[in-house]
Amino acid sequence: MSTSPLHLPDAEAQCRALAEQIRPHLTPDTALVGIYSGGAWIAERLTQLLPLPEEAGLIDISFYRDDFAEKGLHPQVRPTHIPFEVEGRKLILVDDVLYTGRTTRAALNELFDYGRPAAVELAVLADRGGRELPMAPTYCVWHLELPRQTCLTLKRDDAGRLSWSVEDHA
Amino acid sequence: MSTSPLHLPDAEAQCRALAEQIRPHLTPDTALVGIYSGGAWIAERLTQLLPLPEEAGLIDISFYRDDFAEKGLHPQVRPTHIPFEVEGRKLILVDDVLYTGRTTRAALNELFDYGRPAAVELAVLADRGGRELPMAPTYCVWHLELPRQTCLTLKRDDAGRLSWSVEDHA
Repeated sequence: MSTSPLHLPDAEAQCRALAEQIRPHLTPDTALVGIYSGGAWIAERLTQLLPLPEEAGLIDISFYRDDFAEKGLHPQVRPTHIPFEVEGRKLILVDDVLYTGRTTRAALNELFDYGRPAAVELAVLADRGGRELPMAPTYCVWHLELPRQTCLTLKRDDAGRLSWSVEDHA
Repeated sequence: MSTSPLHLPDAEAQCRALAEQIRPHLTPDTALVGIYSGGAWIAERLTQLLPLPEEAGLIDISFYRDDFAEKGLHPQVRPTHIPFEVEGRKLILVDDVLYTGRTTRAALNELFDYGRPAAVELAVLADRGGRELPMAPTYCVWHLELPRQTCLTLKRDDAGRLSWSVEDHA
């Protein structure tokens, strides 16, 4: 396990850039739903940056992933919390990294358990390639290709600041 | 209801172009799954054009669509037929038109009921815009934007030839 020489952009600046991508497409009924954990942090930030009437929803897909049986249950399962009506709404699903697309599929299925949204867009800070399902981000500020053994994750420090971390599991 | 002046490309030529897009990405374990009805016709054509070891699977998403309750049951529900192992396979889902993405989501969910594929790609003849879910085609030969009231459908004549039909429901 070693730190890669990959240049890591400023995640806080990326959140502001993502907000500006989303801004022209906001409608009065748009609501955010962050995927735990990185996506939830970003959704929180976007809620500060954009004129959104409600707090962001939170999705935990631990129970919905199709590799649930393989990975087993994460010890800290967080409950999904959607504090608004999903039916007929325009929702933006927020995640830190788009990779295989399996998390997105799981999150969509969990959302649809709450109702049938008019539309669901996907906002991510990073698209790292390696797709295994035909998902695509609607909004994305960082496109990169990473080898399978490289793990890109968003961190949040005690002061609440977001930053990227990359590790190679060779 | 009137016929639009939209130029309609040769669907048979598009099938051949789609096959050439897919060809470099075929792996020995690739299998096609066509979505009934237009996607199934295209999958049949692709099976003739590409070195695929098996016949294409067929998915009918009538029971899986999230607007099932709204639209009611189509009188001619065709059974889904997947004549191969889905688990661990690379699958290409084939559809005629990518529009809202809801059919794609439904088809993915139906596929996952049969097993957990290693990857699912999406091949379509036409992407007409108007996405309501964050889906994207892996392979597509015709990108266009159509207004909501315009209906683009693939037809097959008695001789088995494919052609496009477009109707405005103004």
